[in-house]
Parts: sequence; structure tokens; C-alpha cells
Amino acid sequence: MYYARPLGRLVGELEKLPGVGPKTAQRLAFHILSVTSDEARLLAESILDVKANIHFCASCHNFTDQDVCEICRDPRRSPDVICVVAEPRDVIAMEKTNEFRGVYHVLQGVISPMDGITADDLTVRHLLQRIQEHRPTELILATNPTVEGETTAMYLSSVLKPLGVKVTRIAHGLPVGGDLDYADQATLIKALEWRREF
Amino acid sequence: MYYARPLGRLVGELEKLPGVGPKTAQRLAFHILSVTSDEARLLAESILDVKANIHFCASCHNFTDQDVCEICRDPRRSPDVICVVAEPRDVIAMEKTNEFRGVYHVLQGVISPMDGITADDLTVRHLLQRIQEHRPTELILATNPTVEGETTAMYLSSVLKPLGVKVTRIAHGLPVGGDLDYADQATLIKALEWRREF
Repeated sequence: MYYARPLGRLVGELEKLPGVGPKTAQRLAFHILSVTSDEARLLAESILDVKANIHFCASCHNFTDQDVCEICRDPRRSPDVICVVAEPRDVIAMEKTNEFRGVYHVLQGVISPMDGITADDLTVRHLLQRIQEHRPTELILATNPTVEGETTAMYLSSVLKPLGVKVTRIAHGLPVGGDLDYADQATLIKALEWRREF
Repeated sequence: MYYARPLGRLVGELEKLPGVGPKTAQRLAFHILSVTSDEARLLAESILDVKANIHFCASCHNFTDQDVCEICRDPRRSPDVICVVAEPRDVIAMEKTNEFRGVYHVLQGVISPMDGITADDLTVRHLLQRIQEHRPTELILATNPTVEGETTAMYLSSVLKPLGVKVTRIAHGLPVGGDLDYADQATLIKALEWRREF
């Protein structure tokens, strides 16, 4: 493929991004060439800035640019309810609901024997320490309803319950606006199993 | 939306890229956070490098990091045939075919009265100068088969023919692997009109 050297280099770097193929990388590179130098510098600087200044919150292990993240420091949020999620992006998904007023704990992954990931690779130890120090009233396990997510939730429940803390799991069932006819069997079975009195 | 400041800034910058929505910007930002600092620096540097070192070839107006681009300087390519395209990406599309052994001229746009773009905004003047200086034997007009592309080709043909140079237009017709049944009327009409003896 013919590209001037710096252009080829940029296309190559962009292609490394997830979901970016050669065609998209080329489109993005041409876009970057078309914007002003200041705009391109803003993008380049924000990439360097994020790598230099983002690390994990000392309390919940979410991404933050401070010692303890904004959510953990927010006095309007209750530290008595901890929502345990797998990844920082799950915190963002939860925050979008504007419903949850507790705090989070980011596991930074899920237990996956296939990939050789055990509880020791996650922030489980920090979670146990946090529970012993702050004694929350409830722990909501909000890992994904996948095999790994369920395994992780079950494991956590088994180590957390002996500590005398209330452990809950987010509900399974039909998504809002969903259709019985299109729901998979496993979801329907869960929707029946988790039914509530009207 | 809750993001740590540098992360929110990066997501915002990525969202400015074409075809990148909030969800994709978030995925890309989390990916950048997950790679090593060296990898992130490579990406950031290549963005700055491309803006600092890429400009237009003095001869064909394609992107290059030198005075005259690699294609124009290639002694194995014939300067007698000039393929006129609208954008640098069209050069790359042509080069992928590995068929064309002439040189290019990048118009840097097409005539579009709707957007107020006239021939004066393109590199038409440089093309005329190039023709007078080097007297090529053929000019292939390879603008897109769109209204603007056709208008531009017709305009160029009208100003180039008086110079006594052979002017051709890339063919219209059914795409290879195409289907008569699915072809639009305009393409079918062109396919009939441009038919050749077997």
C-alpha cells in the first residue's frame, strides 16, 4: 500500500485500536490530516495525559486521576452499600441510570479458569479488607450474567457471606421492551424463577 | 456521565473523529488505558508527526513528507499518463489495483456549486501548468461517478481538450460480481451506452 511514511505510521497505529480495520484507520488518519494542528495536538495530548494521570482509586479500584475517586469521596453517597462490578466501564453503565447512590468496587476482571484468571488476580483481597474496615450493610454483586460473571458472583458470595454481610445479586429476567417470543430459554427460565408477586 | 477528568477529555477528543460515537469513544479510551505507556506514546506521536510532516506534493498535490512524492519521483512510472483524482484516498484506491503505471494529479476536491466550490478552489491551475510544462500524452479523468464528479470531469475535459491532450474518462458499468437485477437504472443505462464489441 502506498502511503507517505508518517501517514503510513499513523494508519498502522490506528489499526491497533479495537474495531478499527485498515479502511477505518485510513479514514481516521485522513480526518486527522484535515483538522488544524491545534485540534490534532489536543487529541495527542489527551492520549498522553490519560496514560500519565489515570490510575486506580485506592478505595474502589475504579479509574481516577486522584488518590480516591470522586464517587468514593462524594459525601452524598452512602458507603454502606457497595456495588461490585467487573470493569470500570460497568461503573459508567450503572452511573448512567442515576439510580444507585452507594459506592462501587471494581474487581478488574472476572474469574476465568480458561484464561487462567483466579480470584487472586482480581481486587477481591482489597474488597475483603474494605468490608472488614468499613462494615457495609449490603454488597450488590453486579457482574455480567455470563458464565464467568456468574462464577465470580458465586465465589464472592461464598467468601462474603461468612463475614455476616448481606449479599445480593442483580436480577435476571426479560429486558424492558423485550419479547417472550425472542427471549432465549435460559433467560425465560430465569424470568420465571425470579418472578415476584404483583 | 461520570469520568475521571483526563479520561473524559480523551473520550471527548475521540468522539470528534468521524464515525466514532460516545460508546466507541469510551471503548477506544479504555483500550488506550489498557496498553503500555510506550504504545500510547507511539499513537500520540504519530498523530503529531503526521500533522508536522505531511504536506502536499509540489507536483501532483498528493500527501507526502517530501517536496515531491514517491510516485512522482519513481523512474519506473511514466509521467506521460496523468490520472486525475479528487482526493488522496483515491490515489490509494488506484494504487491497490497495481495496474496503473502513470502518475497522478490530486484535485483536492470536486466542483460543487451547492457547497460553493469552484474550479478555482481545486488544483486545476496547477494541472494546466503541469500539462503545459510536461506535455503528457493522456489524461485519465478518474473522479467519482457522482453528480459532482461528473461535473468536474466535464469541466476538466472542456478546458483540457483545447490544449491538444488526449482526455479519457474511466468507464461506467456494472461492477464485477454485480447483478443486473440489482443494478440501478442509471448504471444499466451507462452499461449499455459504454458497451464494447466482444
